[in-house]
Amino acid sequence: MVRWKPDAVGRLIQAAVTLFGERGYEATTVAEIAEAAGLTKRTFFRYFADKREVLFMGSEQLQECWVMALTHAPPGAGAMRAVDAGLDAVAELFVDRHALARMRAQIIATNPELQERELIKLAKLASALAEALRARGIADAPAELAAQTGVTVFHCAFGRWVQQDDPRALRRLIDESFAELQAVVAA
Amino acid sequence: MVRWKPDAVGRLIQAAVTLFGERGYEATTVAEIAEAAGLTKRTFFRYFADKREVLFMGSEQLQECWVMALTHAPPGAGAMRAVDAGLDAVAELFVDRHALARMRAQIIATNPELQERELIKLAKLASALAEALRARGIADAPAELAAQTGVTVFHCAFGRWVQQDDPRALRRLIDESFAELQAVVAA
Repeated sequence: MVRWKPDAVGRLIQAAVTLFGERGYEATTVAEIAEAAGLTKRTFFRYFADKREVLFMGSEQLQECWVMALTHAPPGAGAMRAVDAGLDAVAELFVDRHALARMRAQIIATNPELQERELIKLAKLASALAEALRARGIADAPAELAAQTGVTVFHCAFGRWVQQDDPRALRRLIDESFAELQAVVAA
Repeated sequence: MVRWKPDAVGRLIQAAVTLFGERGYEATTVAEIAEAAGLTKRTFFRYFADKREVLFMGSEQLQECWVMALTHAPPGAGAMRAVDAGLDAVAELFVDRHALARMRAQIIATNPELQERELIKLAKLASALAEALRARGIADAPAELAAQTGVTVFHCAFGRWVQQDDPRALRRLIDESFAELQAVVAA
């Protein structure tokens, strides 16, 4: 008999991040993650290719959310404004994930392979945003520049967000980072 | 008896890029690269860990050159101006490498693993520039934002440079990309 397991993905992520934090990323096995979540290895592999991917499912959701919101920005919005409009939805998505994001950031900081993975995910995010901008009729160069600038601002703000205590601060930190970037670029 | 081999590195890079272009990156071996350069495998491995690294020695030189020039920018220059000052030296470094850079760009475009490597190198470049800015007394956030913006502008301009015919156009294309970024960010 199969028991119904609500939010298997959420439980696996929580269990993995907790174990990575306690025992180290390298030392933790998929079997241990599944057991801590009260699930089987088979269930784990239904959702994740390997233990690394547990740390990056959030990156996929971030990209989907941002691209979707950018695509639905008001038709007259220019490249940078459409990118920024997407960040309202992104900031909202992360409100409930502050504790998890802090633990995740610490784990990634200990492992060069995870850091490389994170950089690649950010670059793919920028490519996806640029593509969504081009689909709005923005030319290649401004699409690439606005998308990459959006990711730069988000990354800077996210780094600050996981180092402070207010889960709702992300949107404000994004605005502050964007204002700093404008000042740096105009100087 | 060992014959003196002037510019072994340059010859290995030229031979590798030519073979990668003719036969494909995957199908080319280190032995073939060494032979085409008139050198031994042993000499190859004195300079490169593997065939992939042949394509990224230029990235190392780019980083060294840019960091050095940024570090020696006038003491009063702010973050973005110091980053930009470094780009004079970078543009000069690439004048003689236009044909090679075009071939390299085509090879990297065919291989996802090489594309990931390229993204990681660009991210490391941004980190190195940010560190050099902090060493000039720039605070963390403007250092990160100016460094990343410099890499964004360089990457955009470089992509245009390899798609046109004038080897000396890089500096102008950088200026144009930076002006476009300023316009995008101010809008």
